[in-house]
Amino acid sequence: MGRWEPNARGRLANVALELYSERGFEQTTVAEIAKRAGLTERTFFRHYADKREVLFAGSSQLEEAFVKAVADVPKSAAPIDAVAVGLDAIAEFFVDRRDFARRRQAVIMATAELQERELIKLASMSAALADTLRRRGVAEPAASLTAEAGVAIFKVGFERWIGAPKEREMSRFMRESLDELRTALTGN
Amino acid sequence: MGRWEPNARGRLANVALELYSERGFEQTTVAEIAKRAGLTERTFFRHYADKREVLFAGSSQLEEAFVKAVADVPKSAAPIDAVAVGLDAIAEFFVDRRDFARRRQAVIMATAELQERELIKLASMSAALADTLRRRGVAEPAASLTAEAGVAIFKVGFERWIGAPKEREMSRFMRESLDELRTALTGN
Repeated sequence: MGRWEPNARGRLANVALELYSERGFEQTTVAEIAKRAGLTERTFFRHYADKREVLFAGSSQLEEAFVKAVADVPKSAAPIDAVAVGLDAIAEFFVDRRDFARRRQAVIMATAELQERELIKLASMSAALADTLRRRGVAEPAASLTAEAGVAIFKVGFERWIGAPKEREMSRFMRESLDELRTALTGN
Repeated sequence: MGRWEPNARGRLANVALELYSERGFEQTTVAEIAKRAGLTERTFFRHYADKREVLFAGSSQLEEAFVKAVADVPKSAAPIDAVAVGLDAIAEFFVDRRDFARRRQAVIMATAELQERELIKLASMSAALADTLRRRGVAEPAASLTAEAGVAIFKVGFERWIGAPKEREMSRFMRESLDELRTALTGN
């Protein structure tokens, strides 16, 4: 029971998502998740604070990866080009995670509470990105606007990536979304 | 008690905001709001579903005004130009409301539950705007990206408008934010 379980964390996440898809998020208990994973509830709570956290544990890592990549770009680069490098880091983060991301998205769209949580995570990402841009010397309102644009590109690019009938590299969708936004704002 | 109260709705909103600012949103009850406004709780509930609704009753009107203005622009206009007309309609909506908007914003920033609600309202605005753009014949992902950009411009422009030491027309901040975003994305 208390012994080390190889990849318990990953197993719990997969099983949780399976149950949320089958029964709905609200109808699933931690006891059921642990049981199907062949683990104890205690093990579950060693890895996740609650059943919602299973779906959002990756969000903080994602924000970190995004922001760190932007911070590491040489200061001579234009802010939007630094953000584009950050979007590549996001694409890297999601390699081999498309199936999980798709199923996670379906669960989130089905539950108002989870949609709210997702909006909070995106707002946090935008705030962290704006902060990083200001530390790169970008003035306001350009820092906040570029950050909002970066998160919008991520959001739309991500949805297109998981919605595509065949798997294609996420970075292509990110670049495409950036180009589309640029065209939408300037007409060329 | 049951009689018609002139401008009960506006008085309740002003008194509620006053109490939220003084005591905090969570610490304020509907009974206290009604009492200070010299009205009954029953009158309060004739105008607002709950104490949170006092702060968000305007959001749906705002979304409607924004979306309607965009829908009414001749179809020959570029999507972002239609959105700019919508932003002017928003500026129109907020004429004479700066003081209320500032105090409301302070209350919202102080309470996590209200911040979440605000994020939901902004997401709803973006979805409604994307829908309007699609009905104007704008394809995806341009429709979603332009809508996200429009809401980002509103958000940042609004914050700058309420944050400015002196009152200036909101439409100027909206135009400035649009120009800044354009520059951030294209470098010119």
